[in-house]
Amino acid sequence: MSSTRDIDALIDLMARLPGLGPRSARRAVLHLIRKRALLLTPLADMMQTVAATARECVNCGNVGTTDVCDICTSEKRANGEICVVEDVADLWAMERSGVFKGRYHVLGGTLSALDAIGPQELRIPRLIDRVREDAVSEVILALNATIDGQTTAHYIADQLEGQVRLTSLAQGVPIGGELDYLDDGTITAAMRARKSL
Amino acid sequence: MSSTRDIDALIDLMARLPGLGPRSARRAVLHLIRKRALLLTPLADMMQTVAATARECVNCGNVGTTDVCDICTSEKRANGEICVVEDVADLWAMERSGVFKGRYHVLGGTLSALDAIGPQELRIPRLIDRVREDAVSEVILALNATIDGQTTAHYIADQLEGQVRLTSLAQGVPIGGELDYLDDGTITAAMRARKSL
Ligand SMILES: [Zn+2]
Ligand SMILES: [Zn+2]
Repeated sequence: MSSTRDIDALIDLMARLPGLGPRSARRAVLHLIRKRALLLTPLADMMQTVAATARECVNCGNVGTTDVCDICTSEKRANGEICVVEDVADLWAMERSGVFKGRYHVLGGTLSALDAIGPQELRIPRLIDRVREDAVSEVILALNATIDGQTTAHYIADQLEGQVRLTSLAQGVPIGGELDYLDDGTITAAMRARKSL
Repeated sequence: MSSTRDIDALIDLMARLPGLGPRSARRAVLHLIRKRALLLTPLADMMQTVAATARECVNCGNVGTTDVCDICTSEKRANGEICVVEDVADLWAMERSGVFKGRYHVLGGTLSALDAIGPQELRIPRLIDRVREDAVSEVILALNATIDGQTTAHYIADQLEGQVRLTSLAQGVPIGGELDYLDDGTITAAMRARKSL
């Protein structure tokens, strides 16, 4: 009654975003209606554009607007180093630090017995193919310092043992910490001090 | 580099929503891309719809999709009571409590010497007209228990003195509290115990 059906529907959709509950969704929608020309219409247009164009890189799993992402196609990044991360947010966090000049591999999660996520549910087979096919000299396992993250790192290390130099981020990533929460300086320090497995 | 221009633009737009910073905007956009069919496309469509249809009620300032809102046109609500609130979020909070069966008047803010907001910047002249033109028996000043809210309530009370019964919400609204943060029970209790000014 207090708002019409479409506005209520928009609030319900907004409340499904991570970090927004019902109350902040209502506030956001009122803000959008007040800033219709400056924010609501541009946001709707850009969502349409991204819905039409966003795709996962078939090589590394990064999100972009081409079948193979900018990082995978850039000749500047072809230095034989692959940094393995759990998800795209971690890749973005690594890029913001600016410390890494190689390419990435996004697993799309971690191994988890509890959630029945095995190697086939992640992008692990593709990683093993990349190491075999490309001139890869080093694989940096930049997984979160959680139990599942470290279990996954050990599994991958076992699979690639003897085929490539394997490293992980230095201690400096706090125990239980997640990459996407870290400041650039911590990521940079951990990358510079990375150690062989 | 870590994402393409359109995705970055979408993150920047999302970060301008209240309650979302850059990090939660990035998370939200990745979530939207993952849930393209279930969330991103419906959200973009509903934003387009709301951008095209949402408007302020010319009578009370509520947000709806018609020139005069559902509450102002409902014969069930024509009981001669007007509840004055600061903004639409407060009107929605009042409606969720279900305690009030009259109509509303949304001021669009509070008087503020600091921000140079006078009666003409708010919907106060329209409120005075409504009291004169319609068969209004009671005006309930449901403004926030802040200094600006109470200053505004006193100003309106002065303007309407002798023309209509003036009430305010009972104590029960915490000092310094804002309506939109209260639970339904508190709003209901405060409305039921409202007192004459
Ligand atoms: Zn790629
Ligand atoms: Zn109205």
